[in-house]
Amino acid sequence: MKLRSLLVTLAALCVGTAALADEGMWLYSAPPRAQIKAKYGFELTDAWLDHVRLSSVRFNSGGSASFVSGDGLVITNHHVGADSLQKMGSQEHNYLRDGFYAKTASEEIKCNDLEVNVLQSIEDVTARINAAVSVTLSGAEAALARRKIIAEVEKESRDKTGLRSDVVTLYQGGAYHLYRFKRYTDIRLVFAPEAQIAFFGGDPDNFEFPRYDLDVCFFRVYENNQPVQSTHYLKWSARGAADSELVFVSGHPGRTSRLLTTPELAYLRDNQFPDQLATLKRREVLLSSWSARSQENNRRAREDLFGIQNSRKVRDGGLAALQDPAFFGAKVAAEKALKQKLADSPNGAEALAAFERIAAAQKSIALVANRQRLLEGGGGFNADSFSLARRLLRAGDERPKPNGERLAEFAEARRESFELMLFTDKPIYADYEILSLADSLTYLAANLGADDPLVLAVLAGKSPRARAAELINTTQVRDVAFRKKLYTGGAAVVAAAHDPMIEVARLIDTEARALRKIVEAQTEIKQQAQALIGKARFGLEGANTYPDATFTLRLSYGTVKGYEENGAPVAAMTTLAGLYARSAEQDNKSPFDLPPRWVAKKSALDLNVPFNFVSTNDIIGGNSGSPIVNQKAEFVGIIFDGNIQSLSADFGYDDKQSRALSVHSAGILEALKKVYEVPALVSELTQGHR
Amino acid sequence: MKLRSLLVTLAALCVGTAALADEGMWLYSAPPRAQIKAKYGFELTDAWLDHVRLSSVRFNSGGSASFVSGDGLVITNHHVGADSLQKMGSQEHNYLRDGFYAKTASEEIKCNDLEVNVLQSIEDVTARINAAVSVTLSGAEAALARRKIIAEVEKESRDKTGLRSDVVTLYQGGAYHLYRFKRYTDIRLVFAPEAQIAFFGGDPDNFEFPRYDLDVCFFRVYENNQPVQSTHYLKWSARGAADSELVFVSGHPGRTSRLLTTPELAYLRDNQFPDQLATLKRREVLLSSWSARSQENNRRAREDLFGIQNSRKVRDGGLAALQDPAFFGAKVAAEKALKQKLADSPNGAEALAAFERIAAAQKSIALVANRQRLLEGGGGFNADSFSLARRLLRAGDERPKPNGERLAEFAEARRESFELMLFTDKPIYADYEILSLADSLTYLAANLGADDPLVLAVLAGKSPRARAAELINTTQVRDVAFRKKLYTGGAAVVAAAHDPMIEVARLIDTEARALRKIVEAQTEIKQQAQALIGKARFGLEGANTYPDATFTLRLSYGTVKGYEENGAPVAAMTTLAGLYARSAEQDNKSPFDLPPRWVAKKSALDLNVPFNFVSTNDIIGGNSGSPIVNQKAEFVGIIFDGNIQSLSADFGYDDKQSRALSVHSAGILEALKKVYEVPALVSELTQGHR
Repeated sequence: MKLRSLLVTLAALCVGTAALADEGMWLYSAPPRAQIKAKYGFELTDAWLDHVRLSSVRFNSGGSASFVSGDGLVITNHHVGADSLQKMGSQEHNYLRDGFYAKTASEEIKCNDLEVNVLQSIEDVTARINAAVSVTLSGAEAALARRKIIAEVEKESRDKTGLRSDVVTLYQGGAYHLYRFKRYTDIRLVFAPEAQIAFFGGDPDNFEFPRYDLDVCFFRVYENNQPVQSTHYLKWSARGAADSELVFVSGHPGRTSRLLTTPELAYLRDNQFPDQLATLKRREVLLSSWSARSQENNRRAREDLFGIQNSRKVRDGGLAALQDPAFFGAKVAAEKALKQKLADSPNGAEALAAFERIAAAQKSIALVANRQRLLEGGGGFNADSFSLARRLLRAGDERPKPNGERLAEFAEARRESFELMLFTDKPIYADYEILSLADSLTYLAANLGADDPLVLAVLAGKSPRARAAELINTTQVRDVAFRKKLYTGGAAVVAAAHDPMIEVARLIDTEARALRKIVEAQTEIKQQAQALIGKARFGLEGANTYPDATFTLRLSYGTVKGYEENGAPVAAMTTLAGLYARSAEQDNKSPFDLPPRWVAKKSALDLNVPFNFVSTNDIIGGNSGSPIVNQKAEFVGIIFDGNIQSLSADFGYDDKQSRALSVHSAGILEALKKVYEVPALVSELTQGHR
Repeated sequence: MKLRSLLVTLAALCVGTAALADEGMWLYSAPPRAQIKAKYGFELTDAWLDHVRLSSVRFNSGGSASFVSGDGLVITNHHVGADSLQKMGSQEHNYLRDGFYAKTASEEIKCNDLEVNVLQSIEDVTARINAAVSVTLSGAEAALARRKIIAEVEKESRDKTGLRSDVVTLYQGGAYHLYRFKRYTDIRLVFAPEAQIAFFGGDPDNFEFPRYDLDVCFFRVYENNQPVQSTHYLKWSARGAADSELVFVSGHPGRTSRLLTTPELAYLRDNQFPDQLATLKRREVLLSSWSARSQENNRRAREDLFGIQNSRKVRDGGLAALQDPAFFGAKVAAEKALKQKLADSPNGAEALAAFERIAAAQKSIALVANRQRLLEGGGGFNADSFSLARRLLRAGDERPKPNGERLAEFAEARRESFELMLFTDKPIYADYEILSLADSLTYLAANLGADDPLVLAVLAGKSPRARAAELINTTQVRDVAFRKKLYTGGAAVVAAAHDPMIEVARLIDTEARALRKIVEAQTEIKQQAQALIGKARFGLEGANTYPDATFTLRLSYGTVKGYEENGAPVAAMTTLAGLYARSAEQDNKSPFDLPPRWVAKKSALDLNVPFNFVSTNDIIGGNSGSPIVNQKAEFVGIIFDGNIQSLSADFGYDDKQSRALSVHSAGILEALKKVYEVPALVSELTQGHR
């Protein structure tokens, strides 16, 4: 937000509104009506907002989506649906790679453990939460008190409304809002293109522009075994987005860090990001190498590998921003200016002291960060079997406790979602588990040293590879019935099972919990301090601001607009013709090869139809699959990426080169009509009903 | 060597000779005549040894080779020649990827900066070296004294004989031998196959067996613009190696660490290997991603990427061995047993104390290792432009010093080789340099922290990427004439040039040199201690042993022999038929695709001809390209790899599953005749002359 306040300050100096940047991931409860009115002359009405909100869908697997028909049809990105496509696949059916189309409702395939949410209401519960957390409490006690009141508010709301109810921490603890969602768990696949065209250009072209990806996927939301009748859905625009047009993105940005203080940013820059990057790159090499040994390996690892490569580019971009003295220096300067203002203001002392507390807390976290990541973060135990084992172990210990005293993920209000995760019947492959666990145990031993007592205890006299094989081959946690038995039976039954993987989770649990407690207590201290700073900043800078992203529904606005790179203009739109040209330029070799269907149907296509485009909307990871809508609230495209210059968005907005990337609604329609020849789906999109 | 002594001890307990393992990388000056006679009944004669030695060739770029005709024709691996193939390539000619054949002598292409050596003689100079290094000297003083006497011996020999003269440290300083080599620097490419077939299966199949690689490449050695008349060359065996046959490998194993003490091994396990692996994997991801953006990127990075992926597998294998409690435990047990023997022996105290000194020295090294790797090791400045800049800077400072006081690489005896490296006219690509330097500067800042004073000074207020671009775009060191001017001019001319890259080298030089000095002094302490242990061990265990590898000529022996894996037998040989089967199994997709020529000529081939095979010979990196010869000293194959189980060979020999991998001489001939149709080359191989 330091960058933002700079921009706002600059804007305030200008006459008129032209200098206003399209910054912000705005709350639906506090939309930027004035800014949009001032810059674009467009009026955001309540009706418009309600309609777009109720048409917006959150994929809890980590993305966004929207209803595009009255019969529960939703569109998201192929890479958001990929997790489900991978899980519903088998050695015989590789839906992720080959695509899928359900000609009739009966052919639609149900996803394994997918939950999607639609936001019903937002309620400000700040006063109630703060009232329950006395300012005299220490960090750990305050954290417990806050967890307790949050769990209480959530449970009360859930009991009363039957809706999923999450208290969301905004403005770093400056505000608490209760978000109520309608949950859907019967989601079925309708259409997916081939991975080749969805992710055309693969990792090399990821985050690049110009781009040519059909990164879309259609699902249908069911309830009581019937498609939901979605009264709110986005009308499909056959014309789609036009250059220079005002467009909105309604989606779920996952996380930004724009309000962090400079010691926190320095920690990310010098500690957390380098550590995460080393892990990501280690796993990327592991999975790339293993995938290449056979086609089945490739199918099993593809989805994880994509996620890793994607995160790696994001982190590399974030690190580059933080290591850039210009970028970091602006943060330092803004913080210095704010501190000066605080020093000059009569009530600034409290906020200034808060800065000191944040710096101290960040130091305390840094001291335990490495072991915390390995043990509690799971960096040393990277396997689904381990995660399941730990969930079972902890469920036995946590569930008998009062709701408010449990670890956050065991709160009553999250029970259904937790159980959905725990009882997933997605396939878990032993060979892949061994590969991944052996790699992370190797890293554990390398990082802590092979003579570390905890390492010796975990490995039990075996090499990382041998121990991984032993644990994966003997644990029963991959059996859903076994998990149900232990979860239902509680701690005594868990202990009696003597499952080797659960026993490993138990072996490290005391230390893992202790590390988590330290980090949570320090985080609580930071949160309280940040809330004080937030309040003081609010007093100095006034209202009309947006909080950091929290994977809850936000609205951003911007224009379809190209940019300049290395002195040359980059046009805002690509066309289908560009797709064929890019493929030819790379000799049609993977990942620039086209699915046979696209080769065969080339002559049928209107190659001038727009395919992908860029806009200035402020987005971040989690926005993938977000609808991009025009002033009439029509669907004109779907967000699927940001360009490489946008990877600093975690820490600040910039509209010089930074752009959001979307698939164009006209391009999608042209492909469905001429390449995939799916008239029923085309008609549902254009008519709004099956 | 601990593993070895265990094996020897076991063998000594057995009746007969069957239990003798085929262990050892033996000195030509102390060949294992008795062992071979005992186990195989074969007599190693002086004539046989001289002939094979003088037919053996060292590629100073990092591999082995052999003369296979009387007209200077040498064969090595494609991956050993790859460095040269890459350098002689251009945007128009991708010899590395597409292969090459010179129909006539005039078409042969000269390599850029390749030096090859043929070993002429070995002289034991231990007494002279030790006499010049008083036992009363401290580590640093002893190192200086040793460097001085070594430089003196080398220079004297070089002046007298005109031969390249290197004093080689053997048995960890237990012995010093003077190796004299004939140097050749006019090496021309004769034949290379396509990278696809040379490295069929790519990284996924690297270090795996069964294998199907035509990993060969032919060069011709010239002198005075004429092919050398090699009186010693290996006769080509058209029949090649047979199952269960006794075979020898004559080549240049680079480095083994079999005599390391357990604190040194623990350092590798917990410190050095994890660090190297993180760097390798970081660079692998960087280059893979960049290569995939365009075919020209791919050509520029391919050779480095191959080297990185190869090293990554080697290090992963080495780390796995060291992290295996069985393997490491055997080392610990052997060391304990040796120490007990020393404690029981009247003269053991000195060697026991030496163990303590090694442990202490290793600790001192660990303290500075990180910064040493970044600054002196170049981990933070990974670009050819930086290496050249530092060479120029240091040449200016070192060359005026007395020969014996210079940093090792500036010793007079190495001058010609040093100048060959410095004045290379291989293409250095600015974009690739920026990519690589930006990545390593990013790592430097992440590792030391962006606020580290040295990092701030190096980056000069810019981001790593911007600073890398600035340095690479403004330095003149990629201009050979500029380098010649500065090298000739000396320190004053270097300083006057104000070259930005040289100034960066200067900026870090004081600390880099200081770190190097610490490591060299501690290494010297270790070396002296190891020499004491070596002597004591020799006293306890008797003669007939081999020193750790030193990239000098060694002889190993073994048999062509399959093994068992996961309970199933793996045959010793693959055939050409297997190549086509493996490709089909992977849908002929890269890296399992076959060059068009191989597809077209399939029917012409005798598919039963052996292609690759395994043997029990004791080898390691550097042995790539070594001839594998039979009892008649005929060329029956060429080493190109070890299997995945052999990656513990750095620390110990094992013949249960560990195998050396070779291309079979019959398979090479079949391919040259039927696929490449190069009768002149075939005739030269079979006739021994053009």
